Amino acid sequence: MIAIGIHGGCGTLPVEMMGAAQWDEARAHLADSLRAGWAVLARGGSALDAVEAAVVVMEDSPYFNAGFSAAMNAAGEHELDASIMDGADLRFGGVCAARRIRNPVRAARALLENGPSVLLTGPAADDYAAVCGIELVENRHFTTERQVQALASLKARAAAGTIAMAGEAEKHGTVGAVALDAEGNLAAATSTGGFNNKPVGRVGDSPIAGAGTYARNGVCAVSGTGQGEVFIRRVAAYDVAARMMYAGQSLEQATDAVVHESLSSHAIGAGMVAIDARGCVHTPFNTIGMYRGWVDTEGNLAVASHEDIIRVGRLQA
Amino acid sequence: MIAIGIHGGCGTLPVEMMGAAQWDEARAHLADSLRAGWAVLARGGSALDAVEAAVVVMEDSPYFNAGFSAAMNAAGEHELDASIMDGADLRFGGVCAARRIRNPVRAARALLENGPSVLLTGPAADDYAAVCGIELVENRHFTTERQVQALASLKARAAAGTIAMAGEAEKHGTVGAVALDAEGNLAAATSTGGFNNKPVGRVGDSPIAGAGTYARNGVCAVSGTGQGEVFIRRVAAYDVAARMMYAGQSLEQATDAVVHESLSSHAIGAGMVAIDARGCVHTPFNTIGMYRGWVDTEGNLAVASHEDIIRVGRLQA
Repeated sequence: MIAIGIHGGCGTLPVEMMGAAQWDEARAHLADSLRAGWAVLARGGSALDAVEAAVVVMEDSPYFNAGFSAAMNAAGEHELDASIMDGADLRFGGVCAARRIRNPVRAARALLENGPSVLLTGPAADDYAAVCGIELVENRHFTTERQVQALASLKARAAAGTIAMAGEAEKHGTVGAVALDAEGNLAAATSTGGFNNKPVGRVGDSPIAGAGTYARNGVCAVSGTGQGEVFIRRVAAYDVAARMMYAGQSLEQATDAVVHESLSSHAIGAGMVAIDARGCVHTPFNTIGMYRGWVDTEGNLAVASHEDIIRVGRLQA
Repeated sequence: MIAIGIHGGCGTLPVEMMGAAQWDEARAHLADSLRAGWAVLARGGSALDAVEAAVVVMEDSPYFNAGFSAAMNAAGEHELDASIMDGADLRFGGVCAARRIRNPVRAARALLENGPSVLLTGPAADDYAAVCGIELVENRHFTTERQVQALASLKARAAAGTIAMAGEAEKHGTVGAVALDAEGNLAAATSTGGFNNKPVGRVGDSPIAGAGTYARNGVCAVSGTGQGEVFIRRVAAYDVAARMMYAGQSLEQATDAVVHESLSSHAIGAGMVAIDARGCVHTPFNTIGMYRGWVDTEGNLAVASHEDIIRVGRLQA
């Protein structure tokens, strides 16, 4: 039994933000991400390989705030956070404030596999990736016109004192994946550029085990999106697992409680993709939209950005 | 009802490591730390102020691996991690890989109070502290002969392939404090230099909510010490709270399970200081020694490094 779920960030995602062809392409990239992860699982590969493959596709897409087209910090540069966790043995790897790793999730994976650290920050993360043979790029590789405009818009609103009116889509967004493989292993991965105009050196929840990413066999795998500061304070991803392990809650009960009660009590935008040991995927969010998708245990692939779920087709297991 | 507990790092702490006068002085510094925190609580101050005050004393002491006399990374420099959490509203602040903040816990406190981030890394953490008027020093301020020798010893053993023989005391150590104030608020703080010869850019559990530090009113406050990589993977500090909230465990049951079962299953050195909503302090550890101490709700001050508990006296509430 195999299954995979992904998210591409939550927010208000105003429909007028893009043309119809762009919405179609963004959803097509979600489907590509799912197909990449599913292909790994379908050939007997690991959940860990599957979530890495799925996240890489979204990191390379211009529609999501991770890798290429990542958000820009207040200095107009990209600082990238990512992590990955293996539910089989609780191995974990994360990078924060990386500036030159084309696919930050690959560096996180290398840390998970090779250590000796589980979390590396700043230039040391870039240097580690280089030693591992992972592709480095110039920081400007990540820059797209969309993010340049979003940063300029946010800076203008900040200067005008109307920052509270900034759309959630301009402020944050993240990508993530969770998967169950044929051997019953769960894994989760998350990658993000943070949010436009974020303080230099700001670390969010995405590279932190238990905050933005968590996986434990027999329980769940979780990846979050939303205002990372609150995910950190709420230890949001591990809280899902703890509610299941210690309070006997189902995946749906636990993720709904964390997203719609704990996180929502702070009046922030928040969403999660989560999977349980039976391959059930749940994607709660409290914003108007969240890029998301899944391939269920029957092979049915679906993607969504707002309320409507688009059933793309059925993949072979 | 007020109470406070601290730790100054766990490890093998070989008795031959120092002379008797030095052991006495190290324990005296633990008592000074407790008195500083207690003084805040006794005059009706907050748990947050108390744990900050207690940690500052240990950061300034040459006997503990935080602030002055912090461990050195593989490049022979100091990169400091610290955090603080308010159990009343789950506010949190943390800095990682800071290089110039004399008392990193003060910068963490400023982040908790003023945001906008909860976690800042690298030079940005130093810059933030400067803007807040917190004292900066040159990186070499933190260097002591003890840590220079420890680093040289570890590098020699690493070169000789006998790194596994390095004492726990050379490898890591951290300081932390937990407190209950008269209004029932819990708080926790942690500060560390990591471990000697750590990779440049390595971030441990100390600056991470739920890993090395956690506080929640009505439940517990926790600060950890030990191999941070495993504390991160185990979400150790929040796991204590989750066991109490969701599984109905007592503080003693929860901390014993996390230290002696979860963390010990990875064959690492680990310890914690934790306090519950009634002011009971528990300090489990799986190593030969752990610097620790507490002032209980009756005002009784005790400190310890190994098995023997030294009852110092009684403080006025």
